[in-house]
This record gives sequence, structure tokens and C-alpha cells, in this order.
Amino acid sequence: MPYPVYFYLFTMEDKKLAPTTEGQPIRCKAAVSRGPGEPLIIEEIIVAPPKTHEVRIRIICTSLCHSDVTFWKMKDPPGYFPRILGHEAIGVVESVGKDITEVTKGDVVIPIFIPDCGECIDCKSTKSNRCSNFPFDVHPWMPRDHTTRFTDLNGEIIHHFMFISSFSEYTVVDIVNVLKIDPEIPPNKACLLSCGVSTGIGAAWRTAGVEPGSTVAIFGLGSIGLAVAEGARFCGATRIIGVDTIPEKIKIAKKFGVTDFIDPKECGDKTVSQVIVEMTNGGADYSFECVGVAALVHEAFASCRKGWGKTIVLGVDKPGAYISLNSMEVLLDGKSLMGSLYGGLKPKTHVPLLLKRYMDKELNLDEFVTHEVGFKDINQAFDLLHKGQSLRCVIWMDN
Amino acid sequence: MPYPVYFYLFTMEDKKLAPTTEGQPIRCKAAVSRGPGEPLIIEEIIVAPPKTHEVRIRIICTSLCHSDVTFWKMKDPPGYFPRILGHEAIGVVESVGKDITEVTKGDVVIPIFIPDCGECIDCKSTKSNRCSNFPFDVHPWMPRDHTTRFTDLNGEIIHHFMFISSFSEYTVVDIVNVLKIDPEIPPNKACLLSCGVSTGIGAAWRTAGVEPGSTVAIFGLGSIGLAVAEGARFCGATRIIGVDTIPEKIKIAKKFGVTDFIDPKECGDKTVSQVIVEMTNGGADYSFECVGVAALVHEAFASCRKGWGKTIVLGVDKPGAYISLNSMEVLLDGKSLMGSLYGGLKPKTHVPLLLKRYMDKELNLDEFVTHEVGFKDINQAFDLLHKGQSLRCVIWMDN
Repeated sequence: MPYPVYFYLFTMEDKKLAPTTEGQPIRCKAAVSRGPGEPLIIEEIIVAPPKTHEVRIRIICTSLCHSDVTFWKMKDPPGYFPRILGHEAIGVVESVGKDITEVTKGDVVIPIFIPDCGECIDCKSTKSNRCSNFPFDVHPWMPRDHTTRFTDLNGEIIHHFMFISSFSEYTVVDIVNVLKIDPEIPPNKACLLSCGVSTGIGAAWRTAGVEPGSTVAIFGLGSIGLAVAEGARFCGATRIIGVDTIPEKIKIAKKFGVTDFIDPKECGDKTVSQVIVEMTNGGADYSFECVGVAALVHEAFASCRKGWGKTIVLGVDKPGAYISLNSMEVLLDGKSLMGSLYGGLKPKTHVPLLLKRYMDKELNLDEFVTHEVGFKDINQAFDLLHKGQSLRCVIWMDN
Repeated sequence: MPYPVYFYLFTMEDKKLAPTTEGQPIRCKAAVSRGPGEPLIIEEIIVAPPKTHEVRIRIICTSLCHSDVTFWKMKDPPGYFPRILGHEAIGVVESVGKDITEVTKGDVVIPIFIPDCGECIDCKSTKSNRCSNFPFDVHPWMPRDHTTRFTDLNGEIIHHFMFISSFSEYTVVDIVNVLKIDPEIPPNKACLLSCGVSTGIGAAWRTAGVEPGSTVAIFGLGSIGLAVAEGARFCGATRIIGVDTIPEKIKIAKKFGVTDFIDPKECGDKTVSQVIVEMTNGGADYSFECVGVAALVHEAFASCRKGWGKTIVLGVDKPGAYISLNSMEVLLDGKSLMGSLYGGLKPKTHVPLLLKRYMDKELNLDEFVTHEVGFKDINQAFDLLHKGQSLRCVIWMDN
């Protein structure tokens, strides 16, 4: 399966479809999520042609991220059913809507859930990655007209997910969510940059601005935490402290530059932050909360060095969870707290740079892919991630 | 009273004392705080000569800051009695301890409660103003040997305050807390930079890094809030929104660059943050909490623009107060939260620059001085500040 992407560019299917599918609905297979926590059902659906500003993409492969699992289990809005989940992917442009000049049929692209319109004050600013023309939200629709491009064979609409919906042979994505990439890049690595791995690497590189020689503490060594480690290593951090309750994780963590490991169960009377402050002689320069427990943010904050320590929040806690920080500590200690959505990366500016670094062998993406399955086995990918057995499981379309 | 400082350099008292006082205890007047909230008592005390690394200073004038009032009212530690309060001041070096080369007898200096040793990793870094050789604390002693230089005429020790204790004709201060300044600067303006005014200006300039064209929201228009406004104006902010429950403050606020005023009582069904987000089409670039109510930090945070909004905490709430922020907002909105102690200023690097700007008439310090009294009337200064009737009341020593 891990062939370079150009292998997939001119399959029989492309030849067979072209030029007949352009402007026409496509009947293809999708893994539809029909009820909370229920196995996805691979069924035939109809994918409408792209409207103005939209691109229809044939997916080559897609990977499973925790957010897919979170929304898959969600009974009430923003959980919706039926829905096509999936938002980490790579594909080939099948056709484009009116006014699209940025990509053309046959281009290799990755869809990215963070919009990048390139025109608003945020997209033009170097400080923001929150497009203000298309504010990020978890709408189950296309971003402009709030309708869907998917229907099942009974004519029932199927909801979108994070503007991407990549668990389908074909999907329609707005051009603000599409990035054209170098087709030489192995697709099962490129797709990782659609979300989780970018988030971690970006959080270290862009949000925190980790500097050579820095000390970094990472709470939670799942894929996001490991991607933070990789980003910190890439930025020249010399000490990368990983905190996790599963000591076996140190083995894989070392591959991403983690130099020290703390198991909170082994800290005795001390808190994790006390241990980190002691072992670093004052605290880490940067700390990252990657577990998604708001109460841990305080511990990450306390692990940071007075004077300039930065704490970055990456983990997603339940809606309504609150982060509590001691007011006097905030005032006196000169630390800062920041959130990081998609690692602060501007998709169309920064992702091509990361992909280039990967091709130059400066960035380690390979180790994130722990499993690969065919599309028909997509539910295995859910099992593996749900049980914490995989970092990224790549799902290859059967085409 | 507002003569240039050189007027005070060679008074009869200097001539009379020199050279006899050097190395000797000095008997002089001080305003001693003998019980929580009780009027200060002007009495004669003995000021020991400076030890190694210390400087004895004849105070010219001193101003009253809210922290003096806070500690004056505090029954239990870190409130201590008897104590000499006061930490915003200017004076003339009377004598120096061993190893002092940075200042010499006759130099005009301002004491600054934030130490700046110039040698530790923090003092050498551009990112920190938290000296790690002399961590800031509210000890009632000298910083190195934790003893006092003050005794009353019964031989009882008198506690120090914030390493300064300027409500005395003479005080002893460690060299890490002493800044030599240009003697041409009017003393009743220079003394303001010892604490509150620097904190506000610095918070806008150094901690936030306000940029030309920025929009700023300030919660609380006391001296700190107004100093933030002045700092923001100085940095080129074009819209400065002041929030205060006393509408009369707009008059003085305008002198410091405040362009818009919000009285929370006039916001109807809306929160202050909703009003700010609407009037700025998305939120302020920077918001500052200057009231000292942890619950207001959330409102300041919500007033900030998604993408790059920064909230700076300047107000001091009660010990044990917690700042609560919605976890999802922190994660998704790309905002940051920072504290600011002494405005992030490095005393010996940044304060001379601010004084130069004042002399160049680019920075407005004059309007902060709303009252001036003689030393014998120091309790009036407490009354005025306590009742919210003054910004800064300068207290002139009688010498």
C-alpha cells in the first residue's frame, strides 16, 4: 500500500470516469456513521458535484484521529447522524466548481479542517490561523451554504464532518479547506498533516516558539503529545520530558525525541509539577497539556519556569470544563497560557514547509503510522484507537 | 515643592551630615505603621549604616501606591508591625556599603522593588524580569541577610517593606533595587516609576507589546489602568476603551488617551465583553484586568479578539482567588493570558528609557500627580487614596 501517490493518479477508475463524472453526481462507497458508537456501515452513497468554490476529491487514503471517535460517540449535537466522519486524508482532485483556479483536476491535495481563505484580516496576518471569513465550527454542513453534498440511495441526506468527511471514496470540500501538495510525498504520511500530527508539531513550532536548548514538558504521550515532542525536537529542544501513566510509552516516545519520562504514579508525595521543577532547576520553558483534562492545565502551568514559562493547551476537555489558575501565581510569575488550534499553523503557508522537511528527512512522520487497513476494515481502525493500541491507523481506499 | 532634584542635592542637611554620618547610624524621622489600618506615626528612628551591597538613601519625596494601603491594612503576615511602608520614591545616596561601585554618594536614585542583579539567567535574558538570584517576595527584611536596618528609640526593630521602606527620611536599600537616574528629572515625576505607573505603562509596552493601530480594552481606570492607557497611547494604539463604574473618570482618562468609555451599569442585557466585541467588530487586540478581581479576568479574556487577543492580568486579588477560563474557549480561540509584574520591565534597562521619553515630552507622567503633601501630612495621602480621590499623592520629605 505505501506506494508514492503518483501511482494512484491514473488508475483505471480515473480514466473510466473522466470525462463523464464532471458535473455529475458520483455513486461510490462511504463508511457512514448511522448511530452514536455504532460500527460504521460501508454503503453506496451519492456525492453531488462541487458547487462554486468547491472541489470534489477522490480520496486515496485517510487516517483516524481522536476527534472522529469523539464525534462518533456523541449522541447529541454537535453529534449528528447519519454522518460521514474523517478529516485526515489525501486525495486527487476529480473535478472543480466554478471560480476554482487554485487547483485543477488531477492535482494531489490534502483537505484541512481549518479554513484558509487567504483574504481576511486573520489569514493575511502572521499572528492568526483563525480565518474570520470562515470561522471554524463543527457544523455538519458545507461551510458556505450550510447544505450537504451527500445522500444515501434512499435520498436521505448525510451530514458532513469538519468540512472534510474523508471516510468516503469521494468527498466535496470547499477550496478554503484544500491544499495542493507535491505528489511525490507518500500519501500515508502526507495525510497525517491534515490534523493531529500538525497540531502537535505546530504547537511546539508556531504557538510556543520552542527555541534551541529549551526544556519542554509534555502531559500525555498520545499522538498529539508525541507530535509535540517531534516538533520540540525539530526546533532544537534539548530536554523533552514526557508525562504519562503508561510507562511502556517511553519506547515509542524516544523515537520522537523524549529524553525523560515521568509516571505520575511514581512521584510519591510530590506532584508532577514539583518533580519537573526540581529536575529542571526551576521549571520547563514550555509545557503542553495534551490529555484533555482541564484540571491538568494547572499542573502544566505549575511545571513552567517563572519569568517566561509558557503553557499550551492542546487537549479537548468536555464542553463546560473550566481551567482554574491561582490569580496571584498568574500575576506574579510572568508565565503565560495559550490555546493551540491546529498548532497555530496557517494551512497553506506552513503545511507545505512541514512536508518539505519530511521529504528532507528532518521531520519524523513515519513512526506515527502504526497500522494500515483497507477501507472495508475501517471499524478495526476505530477499535485500535479506542483501545489506545494505535497512534495513527491509515485507511486505504479500495480504488 | 516641584523644584528640579538638584535643588535638593546640597541642602544644609547634607552639608551638616557629611562626612560625619558615613558608617554611622542616622537618627531621623519616619512614618511608622504600628498597627493594621492605624494612622502612621511620625517618630524618630535609627537607620543603621548600609552593609556590603547596600546603599543608604536620603529620600526626597515618595508617593503612595495601593500596595502600601493593602499591606497597611493587613492584620496577619505578610502584614507585619511595626513597619515602614512606602516603595515609590526618589532620593540621594548618602553613603554606600562595601563593594558598591554602581552608585556613589550624591547620586540621585530611585529605589525599585523588583530586584535587577544583572547577573542571573533571568536578568541576562530579554524575556524575564524575575531576578532569580533575588526572587521577589514580600519579606519584611533586607533581601540578603533577612535582617532590618531600622530600630525605634526603644531599640525595637522595625520591619522593612518590599525592600524599600521609603516613608522615612533615610532608608537602606540593596544595590539590586537601586537605579541611578538623571538628576534633571523632576523628583515628583521620577518617583512614580518605582512601581504603579511603570507597571501600567510596561504592561502595554513590554508584556503585551501593543502595536500601532491596536485596539485596547482596560478594565478599571485607577492609576494602573490609566498608566496602561498611557502606555498603549505611547505604543500607538488608536482605540483605547476604558471600563469603569465611575463615569466621571472619563475626564481624566481622556488625558491618557482613552477614546471610548464603558460603564458596566449602562450595558443593559449585555455583558461588557459583548459590548466590546460588538464595538470593535470582533474584540480588542489586548485587554487588561486592572481591578484585582479574578472573576473579571474571564470578562477581559472574552473581550479579546479571537486569533491573537492577549489578556494581561495586573490587578491583585486576595490570596487564594482563582481565575476560571472555559477550556474550550482557551483551546479554540487562539487567545493568551499573561500576568504582568512591574509591567514586565527590567528596572535598570527599561526605566531609564521611560524617563528619557518623559523628558522628551512623549510620555505623560504629570497628570498622575493629583495631590502633594508634606511628610507630616502623610496620613492625608492614605485618606485620599483610600477614598479613591487621588491617583498619586506625592509626599515631600521636610528636609
